[in-house]
Amino acid sequence: MTRTILAAFVVATLLSINCFSQASQPTEDFKPSSLNQPGQEYPQVNSQGYARFRINAPKADSVKVSLGLGGRGGTQLTKGADGYWTGTTEGPMDEGFHYYNVTIDGGKFNDPGAKNYYGSVRWESGIEIPAHDQDFYALKDVPHGNVQQILFPSKSTGTPRRAFVYTPPGYETDKSKKYPVLYLQHGWGEDETAWSNQGHANLIMDNLIAAGKTKPFLIVMTYGMTNEVKWGKIREFKIDPFQTVLTTELIPYVDANFRTLDNRDNRAMAGLSMGGMETHTITLNKPETFGYYALLSGGLYNPDELKDKAKPKLVFISCGSKERPDGVKKSVDELKGAGYNAVSYVSQDTGHEFQTWRRSLHELAPMLFK
Amino acid sequence: MTRTILAAFVVATLLSINCFSQASQPTEDFKPSSLNQPGQEYPQVNSQGYARFRINAPKADSVKVSLGLGGRGGTQLTKGADGYWTGTTEGPMDEGFHYYNVTIDGGKFNDPGAKNYYGSVRWESGIEIPAHDQDFYALKDVPHGNVQQILFPSKSTGTPRRAFVYTPPGYETDKSKKYPVLYLQHGWGEDETAWSNQGHANLIMDNLIAAGKTKPFLIVMTYGMTNEVKWGKIREFKIDPFQTVLTTELIPYVDANFRTLDNRDNRAMAGLSMGGMETHTITLNKPETFGYYALLSGGLYNPDELKDKAKPKLVFISCGSKERPDGVKKSVDELKGAGYNAVSYVSQDTGHEFQTWRRSLHELAPMLFK
Repeated sequence: MTRTILAAFVVATLLSINCFSQASQPTEDFKPSSLNQPGQEYPQVNSQGYARFRINAPKADSVKVSLGLGGRGGTQLTKGADGYWTGTTEGPMDEGFHYYNVTIDGGKFNDPGAKNYYGSVRWESGIEIPAHDQDFYALKDVPHGNVQQILFPSKSTGTPRRAFVYTPPGYETDKSKKYPVLYLQHGWGEDETAWSNQGHANLIMDNLIAAGKTKPFLIVMTYGMTNEVKWGKIREFKIDPFQTVLTTELIPYVDANFRTLDNRDNRAMAGLSMGGMETHTITLNKPETFGYYALLSGGLYNPDELKDKAKPKLVFISCGSKERPDGVKKSVDELKGAGYNAVSYVSQDTGHEFQTWRRSLHELAPMLFK
Repeated sequence: MTRTILAAFVVATLLSINCFSQASQPTEDFKPSSLNQPGQEYPQVNSQGYARFRINAPKADSVKVSLGLGGRGGTQLTKGADGYWTGTTEGPMDEGFHYYNVTIDGGKFNDPGAKNYYGSVRWESGIEIPAHDQDFYALKDVPHGNVQQILFPSKSTGTPRRAFVYTPPGYETDKSKKYPVLYLQHGWGEDETAWSNQGHANLIMDNLIAAGKTKPFLIVMTYGMTNEVKWGKIREFKIDPFQTVLTTELIPYVDANFRTLDNRDNRAMAGLSMGGMETHTITLNKPETFGYYALLSGGLYNPDELKDKAKPKLVFISCGSKERPDGVKKSVDELKGAGYNAVSYVSQDTGHEFQTWRRSLHELAPMLFK
């Protein structure tokens, strides 16, 4: 069961990175993507969401970008007299963040113009299609929290492990205040860098807090696997080693080293895609540890699973409108019918990608720790 | 003058990334580099310091790696029947970290097997040649400090700016203790990520503190330029905008948001290469702000520059033995002769690269804030 669900997330991840809106002629107002390396003019995006690529490889026979119309088609670039390969997506891309890579003469590389983000078990190129609602994760002139890299001891895996901890503005100065904690997991093929780098979890929180829309809380993000990650190894995934790291090593370390409210009602777990599956399993295994559960494009709860356990204070289930929103709504309706505080959220016009999850976090945060 | 020195650092950076020891036949005990992406078998390194590359590009005509014997030669890879290009450096590399990139059919890309590090104004591939003294920056089972990403307001540049702050083990739990601060700058073409990612500044400190060899202190690392960085733009570099960011925006923010000892005798500035030039200029401009100065492969002080100013408590000057150690020693002798507390350090068998700077920080830290 678990393996089948995991495999479904892998397939969803692989297919959805090429999602497209309808095609039309691009307007010539292309600008460099906000995720470009310093000083790099390409890749570019226009006001409609088209992406344009330009890559120097004067002696190559073929250069193709993985972003493009549906499936695995991608965008074939064509070579100019100057040795640069250029091309524009055949239609506008969905708003938000997309992973991609470049196939040059049969080998898979990254676009030297773009910054890299860990996804699909490799550091991929990233591009940002400006979204109509991008203000909620913009870098603004508001008080900013910090993202702390911690290295916590882990006897179960025999090595110090890395996590990132978001501490809200004021954490460093108001030394008496204690905070609730959200444990927030990435998806398959990603790692503990995803929620800050691609997800802008810190900026989402900074902006919500500045607007007085959420309680300040800590967010802890760690790597959700303990085995060696390789293509095809997903079937060997078991939850137990990660559950041990999370509940017997990381949580006690965070509670000992940060000013936390150390109890169930002030501890939440959420995850996207595979991280949702992990959240689902671990919250059901450890209902006394977490008071709030959230699955972002990562499975469903049904009332039978929850009964006879400590009752969650909130169950939040979300996905993109291009995923399976009916299933999310149906699950939440059933939970409500059984007396649970359940909330669904559907991100409009997005699929199994980070824009769905940025928006989901933005919706979820104000509901936590009430 | 400043521009000439800066240009020299740029040239040094470009030339030194290909430094080599003497050639011989490699021993066949190659293992994946410690900086590889998860699950990646190549690039590999052997016990003598040879590097071996293997890159998939079945239809390419030419694949070359920038690491190789002296100058800009690099290592030409040869294509096997399986479509993979392989090659081994003609000799052992210097110990420690090296940036590199891969030229495929005339275009510059990264090795998809390696993690990326910002240097030479691009995210480059990185490889680690195991060093005989690598224990001092190894990830060990000792208490670990945190590396915090902060976003501090900057009126002078009109945007929040990023810095990383190392806080030592115990910082989160002993809430009354205040700490000295080292402001530590990267080199040309690098950014605020360099000292943690490539330099392991946090691990160097964790290990020194665990061994009781240094006082715990904070390290603050921010981006040392304010202009747009492009090739050829180095001549336009002026120190004033960065000096304003550092001394009127970042230092007050750190002092307000961290538990610092807010005075000259508890504040040091150090930098590598171009960051050394910046340290040199800013400490001479603001002798009342910093009590400890350190230049790592980044210029020299002479007694005339320092006279009639607040006296530094320590001047530390270092470089690799493959750079200009005589100049470093002569400068320090002159400073000592003029009554200054000056110390030189020469890293054996290394050049203008991060192993020199890791070792320099390891030597410097125990001398600070005495």
